[in-house]
Amino acid sequence: MGLKTKEEYIESLRQMNPTAYMFGEKITNVVDNPRLRAGIEATAATYEVAELDEFRDLVVTKSQLINEPINRFTLPPASIDDLVARVKLNRKLGNWVGTCHQRCTGLDCLSTLAIVTYDVDQKYGTNYYKNFIEFLKYMQKNDLTANAGVTDMKGDRSLSPHEQSDKDMFLRVVERRDDGIVVRGAKAHQTGSLSSHEIICLPTRAMRTGDEDYAVAFAVPQDTPGLIHVVGRSSLDTREIDGCDIGNFRYSKYCPTLIFNDVFVPKERVFLCGETEFAVDMVVKFSSFHRQSHGGCKAGKIDCMIGTALTMMEYNGTIKAGHHKQKVIDMIHRAETLYGCCLASSYEGKQQPSGAYFIDTVLANASKIHEGKEMAEATRLMIDVCGGFVADLPSDRDFDNSEIGQLLKKYLKGVDSIPVENRIKLYRLAEKLALESADTISDIHGGGSPEAHRVTIFRESNVESKKKAAKRLAGIED
Amino acid sequence: MGLKTKEEYIESLRQMNPTAYMFGEKITNVVDNPRLRAGIEATAATYEVAELDEFRDLVVTKSQLINEPINRFTLPPASIDDLVARVKLNRKLGNWVGTCHQRCTGLDCLSTLAIVTYDVDQKYGTNYYKNFIEFLKYMQKNDLTANAGVTDMKGDRSLSPHEQSDKDMFLRVVERRDDGIVVRGAKAHQTGSLSSHEIICLPTRAMRTGDEDYAVAFAVPQDTPGLIHVVGRSSLDTREIDGCDIGNFRYSKYCPTLIFNDVFVPKERVFLCGETEFAVDMVVKFSSFHRQSHGGCKAGKIDCMIGTALTMMEYNGTIKAGHHKQKVIDMIHRAETLYGCCLASSYEGKQQPSGAYFIDTVLANASKIHEGKEMAEATRLMIDVCGGFVADLPSDRDFDNSEIGQLLKKYLKGVDSIPVENRIKLYRLAEKLALESADTISDIHGGGSPEAHRVTIFRESNVESKKKAAKRLAGIED
Amino acid sequence: MGLKTKEEYIESLRQMNPTAYMFGEKITNVVDNPRLRAGIEATAATYEVAELDEFRDLVVTKSQLINEPINRFTLPPASIDDLVARVKLNRKLGNWVGTCHQRCTGLDCLSTLAIVTYDVDQKYGTNYYKNFIEFLKYMQKNDLTANAGVTDMKGDRSLSPHEQSDKDMFLRVVERRDDGIVVRGAKAHQTGSLSSHEIICLPTRAMRTGDEDYAVAFAVPQDTPGLIHVVGRSSLDTREIDGCDIGNFRYSKYCPTLIFNDVFVPKERVFLCGETEFAVDMVVKFSSFHRQSHGGCKAGKIDCMIGTALTMMEYNGTIKAGHHKQKVIDMIHRAETLYGCCLASSYEGKQQPSGAYFIDTVLANASKIHEGKEMAEATRLMIDVCGGFVADLPSDRDFDNSEIGQLLKKYLKGVDSIPVENRIKLYRLAEKLALESADTISDIHGGGSPEAHRVTIFRESNVESKKKAAKRLAGIED
Amino acid sequence: MGLKTKEEYIESLRQMNPTAYMFGEKITNVVDNPRLRAGIEATAATYEVAELDEFRDLVVTKSQLINEPINRFTLPPASIDDLVARVKLNRKLGNWVGTCHQRCTGLDCLSTLAIVTYDVDQKYGTNYYKNFIEFLKYMQKNDLTANAGVTDMKGDRSLSPHEQSDKDMFLRVVERRDDGIVVRGAKAHQTGSLSSHEIICLPTRAMRTGDEDYAVAFAVPQDTPGLIHVVGRSSLDTREIDGCDIGNFRYSKYCPTLIFNDVFVPKERVFLCGETEFAVDMVVKFSSFHRQSHGGCKAGKIDCMIGTALTMMEYNGTIKAGHHKQKVIDMIHRAETLYGCCLASSYEGKQQPSGAYFIDTVLANASKIHEGKEMAEATRLMIDVCGGFVADLPSDRDFDNSEIGQLLKKYLKGVDSIPVENRIKLYRLAEKLALESADTISDIHGGGSPEAHRVTIFRESNVESKKKAAKRLAGIED
Repeated sequence: MGLKTKEEYIESLRQMNPTAYMFGEKITNVVDNPRLRAGIEATAATYEVAELDEFRDLVVTKSQLINEPINRFTLPPASIDDLVARVKLNRKLGNWVGTCHQRCTGLDCLSTLAIVTYDVDQKYGTNYYKNFIEFLKYMQKNDLTANAGVTDMKGDRSLSPHEQSDKDMFLRVVERRDDGIVVRGAKAHQTGSLSSHEIICLPTRAMRTGDEDYAVAFAVPQDTPGLIHVVGRSSLDTREIDGCDIGNFRYSKYCPTLIFNDVFVPKERVFLCGETEFAVDMVVKFSSFHRQSHGGCKAGKIDCMIGTALTMMEYNGTIKAGHHKQKVIDMIHRAETLYGCCLASSYEGKQQPSGAYFIDTVLANASKIHEGKEMAEATRLMIDVCGGFVADLPSDRDFDNSEIGQLLKKYLKGVDSIPVENRIKLYRLAEKLALESADTISDIHGGGSPEAHRVTIFRESNVESKKKAAKRLAGIED
Repeated sequence: MGLKTKEEYIESLRQMNPTAYMFGEKITNVVDNPRLRAGIEATAATYEVAELDEFRDLVVTKSQLINEPINRFTLPPASIDDLVARVKLNRKLGNWVGTCHQRCTGLDCLSTLAIVTYDVDQKYGTNYYKNFIEFLKYMQKNDLTANAGVTDMKGDRSLSPHEQSDKDMFLRVVERRDDGIVVRGAKAHQTGSLSSHEIICLPTRAMRTGDEDYAVAFAVPQDTPGLIHVVGRSSLDTREIDGCDIGNFRYSKYCPTLIFNDVFVPKERVFLCGETEFAVDMVVKFSSFHRQSHGGCKAGKIDCMIGTALTMMEYNGTIKAGHHKQKVIDMIHRAETLYGCCLASSYEGKQQPSGAYFIDTVLANASKIHEGKEMAEATRLMIDVCGGFVADLPSDRDFDNSEIGQLLKKYLKGVDSIPVENRIKLYRLAEKLALESADTISDIHGGGSPEAHRVTIFRESNVESKKKAAKRLAGIED
Repeated sequence: MGLKTKEEYIESLRQMNPTAYMFGEKITNVVDNPRLRAGIEATAATYEVAELDEFRDLVVTKSQLINEPINRFTLPPASIDDLVARVKLNRKLGNWVGTCHQRCTGLDCLSTLAIVTYDVDQKYGTNYYKNFIEFLKYMQKNDLTANAGVTDMKGDRSLSPHEQSDKDMFLRVVERRDDGIVVRGAKAHQTGSLSSHEIICLPTRAMRTGDEDYAVAFAVPQDTPGLIHVVGRSSLDTREIDGCDIGNFRYSKYCPTLIFNDVFVPKERVFLCGETEFAVDMVVKFSSFHRQSHGGCKAGKIDCMIGTALTMMEYNGTIKAGHHKQKVIDMIHRAETLYGCCLASSYEGKQQPSGAYFIDTVLANASKIHEGKEMAEATRLMIDVCGGFVADLPSDRDFDNSEIGQLLKKYLKGVDSIPVENRIKLYRLAEKLALESADTISDIHGGGSPEAHRVTIFRESNVESKKKAAKRLAGIED
Repeated sequence: MGLKTKEEYIESLRQMNPTAYMFGEKITNVVDNPRLRAGIEATAATYEVAELDEFRDLVVTKSQLINEPINRFTLPPASIDDLVARVKLNRKLGNWVGTCHQRCTGLDCLSTLAIVTYDVDQKYGTNYYKNFIEFLKYMQKNDLTANAGVTDMKGDRSLSPHEQSDKDMFLRVVERRDDGIVVRGAKAHQTGSLSSHEIICLPTRAMRTGDEDYAVAFAVPQDTPGLIHVVGRSSLDTREIDGCDIGNFRYSKYCPTLIFNDVFVPKERVFLCGETEFAVDMVVKFSSFHRQSHGGCKAGKIDCMIGTALTMMEYNGTIKAGHHKQKVIDMIHRAETLYGCCLASSYEGKQQPSGAYFIDTVLANASKIHEGKEMAEATRLMIDVCGGFVADLPSDRDFDNSEIGQLLKKYLKGVDSIPVENRIKLYRLAEKLALESADTISDIHGGGSPEAHRVTIFRESNVESKKKAAKRLAGIED
């Protein structure tokens, strides 16, 4: 079968029949819904770029498993080069789509399962790794996209899964059958679930004795019975629906809540079921991979914001303002910091028992801590450089209005040489980059909350060696 | 006539007949348009609180001019106490409405004109102060709201007004008649222009020889012929239109671009016309007052975000999480910094030749520099504490849907004791506080760009005395 | 008696006979020891400026108690104006001496005792307020300086005073006699203890049942038997000893540890003894006053660093470098933030039952939180602007050396018009401002640790009103 | 000859006869001067660790040039692995010595010359590369240390070298002879010049027409006639002289100014002479390499500060304080950021025409920008966690004093289980880490000023591609 074209990808989604709601209504044609389509286009870009010269070497690789060319987004890293390519590809794509392309999460799940299912089998003699490999072949052969069902609803956050008064606040196994399991629960912030073919679920946190039903991992098609996608509101979501004032001309992002209303999972699609002590491995591996994915794509998004700021400086006549240039440098510095730490986390990766590769978690989390703070700062700097019309720009429909359109265009003009339409479009893009909530909130909460990133770098650092060094220099003998 | 009630205020707007556009369509009933009404309600709050015990002493004062009780928003400060009351009232109102109440700008204009028109008359023997005093009496007697027409469109920002290829990029006098003047141009970011009775225009920058036509200040009713309000887009603007997912249950903000398409201004409403060297006085006084207004109301908005964060911690079961408490402290610190610097700028105010009082500009600008950076940080902290559903929350219409509503409510539940509806509402408020573009962009660009604030504190500081002190300590004799 | 001149002040110290050690040796002539003298000079400046026109109105005031002109540093604030004058005087003095003048701590103790002793007496019928008033008259009549013995040694910080294995880790009463008490313990970081006439001790933290012996406040002369001053090392302390490479030509700072080796305190000098619940009042009042004192003087020190940076820009030929100017603006912004919040905390002060005035603690602590972070940043900015010779500058003795002195001066020359000696002196001052440990560490730990300041603003803020506002806007009814 | 032991290294220095001054006096025995020796020991550590198991693989490598094992500090990187090893070795050494080991600068010069001399020869047919290779063999065979003479005195910084009124403000060729050249000038901040065998000089900035005499690179022994080392003052420099209160028990840093008082350089030691357009290549390559060196060693120094903070928490009884742990995490984050960006800059290195490897400059400078700000912040955090006795600790001589020593030790005790001597030593180390000026100022100015790092990332970033991406998304066609 091999690599899908963008068109084949979209057509493949058209063949699916998910249960989806948005704004209180059932969506029957997902692919042609303009809001969802803008998100699907972003994922489609991961297919499209496989055909572009400047991307091909990065995105097309070969699977040792099926011995065919595949899209890198279906390949668990099998080398340091693969780990590095993840970061570079994500940065280029982030710059290319100016938002979330939504396909990294599936790869982060595959990468996690390629390591942990093997370890579980080693300990328990289970078949998870075999199940996973078969699933992976299917994904690779068909060039499919998967989504990461990780974040549970969590209910009362001071309680563990089995302590909740409603036992479904974390997704769990409610029935074990010979041919598979039935699961119930919900997963939040399911970016691109309707742009995916498959939903891969992993535990969202460490599990302990008593949490056995919650230590579960599996994959199901996004249109499997009982699965309900409820697309959440985001700040600019009616723009695509209305077809005007869109900002990012091509791409967008949407995030459903995914309800598993007693969903059957066939046994060959189960990758963990009850082995509580491996839940933490899954979530730590996944979240580290995903935090690293962010470091690439968000650096790419900052690149886009830098491009917007510099172009706006040309349009506004401020290209020579020293303080604006300083702000652009501050933006560059942030992009390179995210990128540098993530690259290093790849280069410092290590092979795992299954043969797959895992990144350095401290460096990946160091990058994510920056993202959680500095994306907001990069955005603020872009707004500062661009000026007040990042908000308050009249609508395209005002510009098209016969009575006031010409007047508005007269007054929105910047420097002489630039058509006013370009300046208007660029302000609209700046608004989209700065204020699309589905995207900006993920800077902070994507891949776990900021505190989780901090706890990780403390836990994973070798603090004892640092204490030893200090004592040696102070002349202290223990 | 005296103080208007909230209802009288709204009725008075209903009597006006402005030319207004939004989303490409002419708006004939401004007051009942749900989007505009949410903004009008925020301004109406400045009338309503005059009747509330906890606000009355702060908002109701007495005019020496008309010898009647008036709303403080029509009083140019005549004492240190008046300067201080500005800040305290704005903080309380910011917390009360959780957004921009939109009435400060008019007061900032009145406060500016109460100082500068007097100085112009002293130098040139003009009648501007008299004109202003008559206008002020009218504002006070009728408890009117005014809007600040300051920010010009600016065109090519590397050029001064008269150097622009389109001479209208800064508002200017195009005709001088015996009974008044005709002006042409446009003013951007006219928050609440349709919630105001009057539009007061001031120059947006220093003017030099050659810029005489641009050194103009005046007031006109918001429905005067030739004046066109074009309401800009903001990130959540369709929520009020659609009547769902509103977030702030009561209040919102909107920002038109205001086109002066050859508007006649009667001579008794002209406060500056051609005296170029006073343009800078007007803009410096106005922007200092306005930057200080921000310090009050934005501290109040942070208060609101603190309240949201702490309440969400209760709802989510994270009230005991030490790192969340640290983030709340960071938010408090930011609110108090804005507030403290602004209060100090009031207490350190000085009487001007006209008798009116002016604030300390260094301290007011010090506050605004913090606002330009720290509002974004306070917002980020609130999002961090609240969690990912600041974005992606399903629509009220999904919650009301008979097929999925109950399921969604089941899964959105936080701690047992809190009704899920409260948690949903609070997430919606957090979204509104964080992501309403009309409001958040003003954190950065309201009252001039961040660089303007910085240039001001350098220019207004006595750096020579600091150099002298350093040399004395170093033992350097000049 | 009245106001002392600088000379009278120094002479009065000469009459005292303290037990003092430094570098392992007993110091018999404190006043003429060059290291201690540099610190004494800084305190002497508080006497000297009383004779200068530009300071007199701020520093000389009148005591209602003794009906004589007094130095403000002996006056517990009796009005808002007094609270404000504290801040303004400290800023001017900070700029004047470029380091710590060391006299604020005594005033902060007097200001605290003027409030709390009254409250204790009201509850317990004790005589502390009367004792205090007599002591205060003595201080005022003789224009004396006092030092604040507050910070105990603390031992194991996870234990309260009476839980320590060595019971003396917090200063305590070891004997109660008819004519007074005997105390034992030590106080750390006793800036200027040898420049003071009196040592005033207050508890360092809240005390509980079991801590009765530790709830003690009193005053003793600095040369009282059993009191031992051990002057600590600081980073540049041998410069004054050696008499070269001094940096600040006039002033410096030193900080002893003060050991109370069974010191007798006459009963009329006791201000608290066993009333545990008032310990917290004393430390909260003192630390709030002292954090505010810092806000003034440290703003003044930044002023000095700004002057150094700007002068160095002139000397180096970088006065037109835009990025340097931006850094100076960042320094100004920090100075004004400290100052603004402290001024506001004064203006918002309230009268207490005794009649004395107390500041707004939230605003005072908001200022101190900035100090704890931003003094380091202001210092870093000064170093950035000045260049690498803030370290590594050859010694004055090298410049004076006949073989290499001329060569060194040739090469240290900056712009033509400035004598090389001036540039050398200014670099030396920059080094002193940046790297004198006794002064820079107090930016962080003076007035309690940064965490203490943070806990205070949370505890003292009205968070309930903020939560109420958020719920009202979200439409949540409790 | 091969690798030197630590003892052989020190003996080799003893054989040299430099002209050196300190505190105005000529130093005849450099090696046994306690202040200089502490710096020499830090460089000696680079020899010593070659014999330690945990360092050997990193520090001992093989030269293809001389086909012998060599110390990595004499090897211009010949592969990506070499570039990576630089960073890892520097981090380990930074942690090992807790200050500057001073040997990186020589390597950075060798690495630069290995690239640029080849390019010059290609263009001009000169012999510089051959000269360099011979010199390199000599360095490798004898395991020598070199110092980087880069930073000129600069005079009036608004003028280029040949515009200065004193032409010697940048080092220049004053005579060209058949057998070599004579140079005059001075180089500032020559860390470890007396711990080095050779001084390598490179231009400090871009040169233009008219600056031919200043475009000069060469190497001379540190005791060559006419070369004068004047050791500058640093903040704690008398501690080693006095032999007490040292802090870092083993190592320190010193920084001379180096005067070239008409020094002859034989022609085979000349690496550039007059080819102005290559001056910028040399300084850009050197400063990029050196900024990267910092990223490694300063991360190692933060490791040391982390160890100090955590150990002090144990000693003080605050190991469970959540806010202290948060501060340690902030320190870890900073260390990993410096390290991650530097590692990435190595991994992304590229081979140059000569065959040597060069790093990615954007990532190396991104790291240095962090260093310039975040080392100060890491230091501040360490001080915050440790407490006030980072300053003001009594002298070792006080602790040894028979009258007060026991009392002091009684009161300096922390938790019961830790000997008071250990706590005292650890405070002394904290003081040294925080306040040694020679080391801390280099955080800011080492490798060029912060603005230079910023300009570099802007210049070296591909901003056009970012602008193109923004326009594509906005739908703008050029």
